[in-house]
Amino acid sequence: MRILGIDPGLATMGWGVIETDGYRSKLVNYGAIITYPRDSFPTRLGSIDKGVRALLDTFKPDEIAFEELFFSKNITTGIQVAGARGVALAACQAYTDKLFEYTPMQIKQAVVGYGGADKHQVQSMVRMLLGIAEIPKPDDAADAVACAITHAHAGAGRNQFRIK
Amino acid sequence: MRILGIDPGLATMGWGVIETDGYRSKLVNYGAIITYPRDSFPTRLGSIDKGVRALLDTFKPDEIAFEELFFSKNITTGIQVAGARGVALAACQAYTDKLFEYTPMQIKQAVVGYGGADKHQVQSMVRMLLGIAEIPKPDDAADAVACAITHAHAGAGRNQFRIK
Repeated sequence: MRILGIDPGLATMGWGVIETDGYRSKLVNYGAIITYPRDSFPTRLGSIDKGVRALLDTFKPDEIAFEELFFSKNITTGIQVAGARGVALAACQAYTDKLFEYTPMQIKQAVVGYGGADKHQVQSMVRMLLGIAEIPKPDDAADAVACAITHAHAGAGRNQFRIK
Repeated sequence: MRILGIDPGLATMGWGVIETDGYRSKLVNYGAIITYPRDSFPTRLGSIDKGVRALLDTFKPDEIAFEELFFSKNITTGIQVAGARGVALAACQAYTDKLFEYTPMQIKQAVVGYGGADKHQVQSMVRMLLGIAEIPKPDDAADAVACAITHAHAGAGRNQFRIK
């Protein structure tokens, strides 16, 4: 099964694609959709819409796993990031209804075995689990890959993590 | 000029279309895109995406005016409504870059002449300004029409209300 992981954001939306049999996973590709503060908010949303649709066209994932939004204390930023996530969700929904979501703590638990793990522990485990030489960059891409691995390990219990 | 007004929401996204010469305006149509809590959040976003794109195809507005989001104290609701707004903005951005936004207070000021006006005063003025017998229903549609009228009255100064 092919899983697309997405770490939603407005300036940087991390993504990672893995192939998995539920036990072992292989990294297919990763990256980030970048948008620029010099552009208007609607223009940035348009870039995210096109960027996500291009990922779906290119990699044709079977299922998609989102990292749950960390909600900023800054309301303007929060509204913008939630808007970016909404656009990504709508683009994915047009492609499949197999959309899932995991909290940062669930991702740490699944990847490191400990919900309080730090970023470096998560990244090291991602590298080991996938048997790759380098940690995916930027961090948002590594987070998206970790989210995809979390979904791979959720196995038959994954339906409880569907986005409702 | 034809203006589409949008009052963003997840369950009810009000819309209204007016034709204006900047002084007098005529109501073309109004309504609301409705989504249902029994459907998943991504499905509801998909309905909004399709609904907004259908409005643009049907009415071909020259410019689009959004009512600024009132941010709920409930964070889950806030993230969802901000997501719905993001999807509507992305759909509109694919159609035009003439996107504007007004606060509820600016709308009351423009329509009634007083930023502290109540809902009934706004609705009565919308009815009088457009010379229509009935106040558009639901309230979100009336709000969207009021937002379109606000944009019509903004005239040459409208560029300061572009969504950045």
